[in-house]
This record gives sequence, C-alpha cells and structure tokens, in this order.
Amino acid sequence: MPSLSKPAVVLLSGGMDSATVLAVARSQGFAVHALSLRYGQRHSAELDAAARVARALGAVRHEIIDLDLAHLFVGPRGSALTDRNIAVPTQPGATGTIPATYVPARNTIMLSVALGWAEVLCANDVFFGANAVDYSGYPDCRPAYVAAFEAMANLATKSAIEGARLHVHAPIISLSKAEIVKLGMSLGVDFGMTVSCYQADAEGRACGQCDACRLRRQGFIDAGVPDPTRYADA
Amino acid sequence: MPSLSKPAVVLLSGGMDSATVLAVARSQGFAVHALSLRYGQRHSAELDAAARVARALGAVRHEIIDLDLAHLFVGPRGSALTDRNIAVPTQPGATGTIPATYVPARNTIMLSVALGWAEVLCANDVFFGANAVDYSGYPDCRPAYVAAFEAMANLATKSAIEGARLHVHAPIISLSKAEIVKLGMSLGVDFGMTVSCYQADAEGRACGQCDACRLRRQGFIDAGVPDPTRYADA
Repeated sequence: MPSLSKPAVVLLSGGMDSATVLAVARSQGFAVHALSLRYGQRHSAELDAAARVARALGAVRHEIIDLDLAHLFVGPRGSALTDRNIAVPTQPGATGTIPATYVPARNTIMLSVALGWAEVLCANDVFFGANAVDYSGYPDCRPAYVAAFEAMANLATKSAIEGARLHVHAPIISLSKAEIVKLGMSLGVDFGMTVSCYQADAEGRACGQCDACRLRRQGFIDAGVPDPTRYADA
Repeated sequence: MPSLSKPAVVLLSGGMDSATVLAVARSQGFAVHALSLRYGQRHSAELDAAARVARALGAVRHEIIDLDLAHLFVGPRGSALTDRNIAVPTQPGATGTIPATYVPARNTIMLSVALGWAEVLCANDVFFGANAVDYSGYPDCRPAYVAAFEAMANLATKSAIEGARLHVHAPIISLSKAEIVKLGMSLGVDFGMTVSCYQADAEGRACGQCDACRLRRQGFIDAGVPDPTRYADA
C-alpha cells in the first residue's frame, strides 16, 4: 500500500461514481488531490456537491477549474449538458445509441488537465469514475479508451521521459450501479451528499426523470438499501 | 482536395509554426476553425497575434478559450510560462534536457479541446504545429505522441463510434525552422504578424534571448530571408 503522502489526482464530478472512486483512492492510502471542471454545466449543484464530498472524504486539496466549453459545444452535435436548447432525455434511448447528454471529448479534456496537474504534483496516479456497465453508452467510459489514454499519457510528459509511469485507475469501470452503491457505503461514502442528476435544481434536488436519476435510483433498489437522494418531486 | 466547406480545427498559438500550419490547412482547401487557449501565459501578445493571423490567413472562425491552469501549474514542476517565479531560460539547456518553458500536458489539453470542437463541427481533421526537429525537447511534439493521441481520439468520441476517423495532422513535425520559414512564405504567411517569443512585451516585441527567439532568428538566417521580427532591443 502506498504511503499516505503519495499523491493522486482524482476527477470529481460530485456524482455517486466519482465520490466512490475518491473513497477507493483514500482507502489505498493516496493523498487525494480532487479536480473538478466547471465547463458550462447547466447547474452548479454538482460542483457544490463535489466540494462537500472532497471535504467529507478527506481530500487534501480540491480545485475547480473553469473551462468555458459551452459556447463551442452548441448546435446539433453539441450536448444537452451545455446547450439549453437541447433537452435532457427522460426516456431511455434505443440500445446502442449515445444520448444527448454526451459532452464531446469531456473525459479526454478532464483527464488531460488531470495529467498536467499530476505531473506538477509528481503524482503517478490518476483516478477516474468511468463506468462501462450501467453506463449510458458513452465512448469515453470504455476500458479500451482508458488504456489508450494511458498509453498516450505515457508519451506526453516530461515525467514520462524521465521514467515515471502514469497509471489511470478506473476502479469502478466494471461494476454495476448496485455494486457501486455497496462499495461506496463500505468505504463510508454518504451518497446523500452526491448529486448525479443532469438537471438538479439550485438546492441540488434531483429530477428523478433523467438517465442519471433512473440508473442511480435503480442502483439503490438493486443494492437493497435506502435511497438517500433528495428528489424535487418527493 | 477537400471542398472548401470541409471543416478543420487548427490549433493556433500566434507563433510562426502554427501560422504556417494554418496556411497549410487552407492550402489543402479546409474551412479553418482556429482555436487558441488562454491558459495563463505570461503575456497576451501571443493571443493578439493569433487573432491577426487567423484573420489574415482566412480562417472562417477563431475562438480563444479560457482555461485557468496557472494556479494549478506552480512550484518546481510547474512551468516558466505560467509561473512568474520560474525564469524563462536564455541559454540553451544541456542536450536531452527539457527546458523550464515546458507546460505540463499543454498539447494534450489543447488537442483534447480541439477534439471536442471537431466533433461538434463534424470535422475529421485537426491540425497542430508540433515540430520535432528544431524543437526544445518537448515530449508532446514527437511523432509517437501524435500517433498515440490520434489512436486515443478514435476511441474517445461518439463520432468515432459512428464510424468517423479523426486525423491529427502535424504537417511541420519533420521540418527545420528554415524549412518552416520557406513553407510559410510560399503560402503567403506574413511572419511579421506572428509572435514566438516566450516573454514578448505588451506590444508584441520579442526579447531576442529566449529559446523560442533563438530558434526563430536562426531559422530566418538559415533560410536566407530577412527576419521581420520586431525585437525589443533593436
């Protein structure tokens, strides 16, 4: 197990998946440097949740970086998460389709900033809450993508040239939502703090209708534990 | 040759390399969408130059995106380009060392934003001014890095899943500075508009001392053409 002082960068959205991943990194002894991006999301409840989660789970630092993607990512190929003219879907799409909540290259952009910060911190470990099971068909949540990013990263930096090896950890990539619930609870995650909803209200209450809400709600049911989510319609 | 309406994203710093690359993309018939990042550089002269170059060389659009890396990228592993406590070197470093002007993961971050924008634009082409010959030892300017980024990008997006193939063009990667000067001039680039200096003054005048200035000055000498650079000490 690494010593407590070994730094890692953890991508933290404020949702249940990245909160669980932060707890996994802590349980492995890493000094967690949590990184969130304000990239033009519809709501700030997610980032408020990220700050609460970072504090509650003992991150040594939490940074929120601004990157204004919203005015680039508009139009028919934009994203429902950054363009208010595109509706957040409330029904599951056809199998194999990628929903309108996909944000172009978002995980690549976030991992790239994490890569740079890791280099500054002399950290060889980046943690990332990708999930390929109950996921919504996002391409940048698949194991092959994570492996390709890691391979690229190990050619990209001064640290790599000096012999360091970056490891991109995706510890929940193969878990079901119910397994994530159980893992997080076993590591002390208070899921009541997290916001997964794509269109939470200003108080962080979930819509209960969007893809993210449906997957999350089902996860608690399948895990057989009470759902601590605050729903706007409850 | 692609039709004029075929879009491409071109990373544009405002220096001579990326200006030449923009001209190459135009000469191949692409509708150029130029992308610059304000990531906490020491000076804005570079971005002013980028705007002039984009206009002069006929880009259909130029966007400058803000990404505040300066407060993350500090300390001994930070960069002289974002941390004013680190001096810009004015002497060549030892062979094989990477200078203090290296910005952690900068090219990866810029290419990632370009990847997202390309997807929104339905563009399959991203152009990038990496140069591995007269370069300063940057890891993210090598052909192996560019190939690895492209491989990752083709797993990262919805467009890739739908069958599109992204091509990352690095058309000057194997050219000497003198060859870049000649290529740019043959394509109508006015290098007097460009700013390569790492510490240009507010009017965009070059220091004449830093790595970037020395390589650039030598390029004009080797090409046997007048150097249009405005030097602060001239």
